[in-house]
Amino acid sequence: MRGSTITGISIDGEALVERLAALASVGAIGDTDGACRLALTGEDRDGRNLVVAWMHDLGMDVSIDGIGNVVGTLAGAEPGPAVMCGSHIDTVRTGGRYDGNLGVLAGLEVVEAVQRSGIITRWPLAVGFFTGEEGSRFAPDMLGSLVYTGGLALEEALDIVGTDGAVVGEELERIGYRGSAPCPSPPPRAFVELHIEQGPILFAESIQIGVVTGVQGISWSEITVAGQSNHAGTTPMAMRRDAGLAAARVAAFVHDLAGEFGPPQVATVGRLELHPNLVNVVASDAVLTVDLRNTDEALLLEAEARLAAFLEDLAAGTGTGITTRRLARFAPVEFDPEMVARVERVAGELGLSHRRLCSGAGHDAQMFAPVCPTAMVFVPSWEGISHNPAEHTEPEHLEAGANVLLRVMLELAEVVEVRS
Amino acid sequence: MRGSTITGISIDGEALVERLAALASVGAIGDTDGACRLALTGEDRDGRNLVVAWMHDLGMDVSIDGIGNVVGTLAGAEPGPAVMCGSHIDTVRTGGRYDGNLGVLAGLEVVEAVQRSGIITRWPLAVGFFTGEEGSRFAPDMLGSLVYTGGLALEEALDIVGTDGAVVGEELERIGYRGSAPCPSPPPRAFVELHIEQGPILFAESIQIGVVTGVQGISWSEITVAGQSNHAGTTPMAMRRDAGLAAARVAAFVHDLAGEFGPPQVATVGRLELHPNLVNVVASDAVLTVDLRNTDEALLLEAEARLAAFLEDLAAGTGTGITTRRLARFAPVEFDPEMVARVERVAGELGLSHRRLCSGAGHDAQMFAPVCPTAMVFVPSWEGISHNPAEHTEPEHLEAGANVLLRVMLELAEVVEVRS
Repeated sequence: MRGSTITGISIDGEALVERLAALASVGAIGDTDGACRLALTGEDRDGRNLVVAWMHDLGMDVSIDGIGNVVGTLAGAEPGPAVMCGSHIDTVRTGGRYDGNLGVLAGLEVVEAVQRSGIITRWPLAVGFFTGEEGSRFAPDMLGSLVYTGGLALEEALDIVGTDGAVVGEELERIGYRGSAPCPSPPPRAFVELHIEQGPILFAESIQIGVVTGVQGISWSEITVAGQSNHAGTTPMAMRRDAGLAAARVAAFVHDLAGEFGPPQVATVGRLELHPNLVNVVASDAVLTVDLRNTDEALLLEAEARLAAFLEDLAAGTGTGITTRRLARFAPVEFDPEMVARVERVAGELGLSHRRLCSGAGHDAQMFAPVCPTAMVFVPSWEGISHNPAEHTEPEHLEAGANVLLRVMLELAEVVEVRS
Repeated sequence: MRGSTITGISIDGEALVERLAALASVGAIGDTDGACRLALTGEDRDGRNLVVAWMHDLGMDVSIDGIGNVVGTLAGAEPGPAVMCGSHIDTVRTGGRYDGNLGVLAGLEVVEAVQRSGIITRWPLAVGFFTGEEGSRFAPDMLGSLVYTGGLALEEALDIVGTDGAVVGEELERIGYRGSAPCPSPPPRAFVELHIEQGPILFAESIQIGVVTGVQGISWSEITVAGQSNHAGTTPMAMRRDAGLAAARVAAFVHDLAGEFGPPQVATVGRLELHPNLVNVVASDAVLTVDLRNTDEALLLEAEARLAAFLEDLAAGTGTGITTRRLARFAPVEFDPEMVARVERVAGELGLSHRRLCSGAGHDAQMFAPVCPTAMVFVPSWEGISHNPAEHTEPEHLEAGANVLLRVMLELAEVVEVRS
């Protein structure tokens, strides 16, 4: 009986596309599809207000915790932990329309579909969005879900200083999202996150659904080089302490290291700043970041060790002082096998092509993995492009992913009644 | 008779040190000895006003030309081209107290000494300071002297846009230094520039006076890299078009190229900027500058060609688009042999240790070399440090250099009378 009743239900794909467009118009980047809503900025606040308004429209009970995580809940027939889905709505500076937003807005469409179909679930359904997942302004990334699941003390999180000097606690107060809900929160019954792949695999193989088995480990560090500013014309090469050269060597080294390790190892220097940054002055100081990721913790540890050894030689070889500050470190995560199998089965039942894969990006779901059964559903990213206004996922893929999310959540929340 | 009268004259070293300190207090950098007076900024204006006031105090006739070059002239017994000394008072962002300023303020002390001694010269004595020598804000460097000597049309120079988007002509109007004196100007009878070495040679060899034989060639270019911004975790290394990596490769290449060529070749990437400059985003764009210098034009041309070839391969290898814009290019300069010999002889007559050397830095004097007999006098830089608030030259070296300047100028201007 339940199976058949569920079979009739599906997501309104057009409504989902409209919500994504409406949210992307907040902090829109020129006339692109992209948006810039760095965590806890005015744009982030405006985006939050829009999604919270939608939650209220759906009759959900909205709670906000001390780090600004927002959870909308639809009551079930019985009290108890909710079956939760969600993601984030903050973006990188050059953000796309789908990263994070899809998992949150698809959750609202799940609630809408459930209500439209007159379904009552045994357990509550919840949709959450978590503060500062991108880490572009405040490190570590996945900050909100980390605090939500007890991985970082709220007090520590509130004191974090951003790249622009802003402080998390002050910014939360400023935008009105420092809530009173308990934090860390009691874990949900289960957590499911729908997200674009942000990588090229599903797109390249024309597969509709990615069944995510886990998330690769992430190591972020900030490297500061102290050299000696000097005249670029009169200082013999042998007498220089060039912080800019040292920084460049690091960027080249980590790239070559990733090449030596081979996939899935990736390494990126995305941020690099010189001082005084003038054409005819040898740089006295440099600050750069290194992003290392691997699905294998042992290899990730080895990459970190190789980098540390290189920096030691580099400091000696360039006569510079080099210090490293850890910005973020997460070990690889494996999702609950039963949850993964469930996503895989549901995709098959819906007649969708699918494959298992490991996430190359960090996601809020990885913070939930230690505290409750957790899974992720991926949909293709056009040409694998992400963190870019050109980020795109076909409407039918958005709808397919949302339907998988709907079925998985209904199975976990148990349909007890269908009012006609 | 003349010889003996000249012998009695010398510079007031303490007054010179006081003027240098007073000028350094304009745009002072914290509590260091350094100053920041980027060309045509409010700080530059304030520094100019101070020096112009000093010129008036000395009874000099002050003229300002269309590019903001300021020349103070003390009349001689006969009209005609002046024997000129001078340099610049603009600084890099992390400027020291002596670079440029010494050559201008020592010129004022020469005038002061001449007047104190009641000397009348046949030809006028002039002291000039020239706009934007450093090139830190507006390229090319040595802009003012380049226009003064007819190397660049005034109209072109006024349209130059700075690193901050400011326009030369507008900034000259704003600070009140767009003058009416003819530009290019008729060449002086001779030009002599006293300057700190800004390099380590005289300091390392404990030599008091550097007899400058010429200036090495300078090649500045700005390189723009267009790549693809993408997710740092999910984009396989092989699928990247990383503008940041390409920029880093350039910095490493030019350093290694200088090592391969050996001295006097130097190569510097002093400016490097990434966009969007975020830890978890592969950079889509990079802008960097390359500063190449050599005393041998053929080698400098070869270095430029090697760089161009490298950039072509790099663009192909990294899948990026790379464009190069020339910011400045000056061939090596050789100073007038008679003038060089004169400086050398005068240093010897004053009992000062001296050696010949070629300048590693560009100087206003090299712009005068094609239009009149020109020479430069170097004094030691403490540990060769320059373009840095820690830049330092011992008072006795400042005074020694100024006395060489005084003698050389008096010989060239010819003492015709000494009023007791």
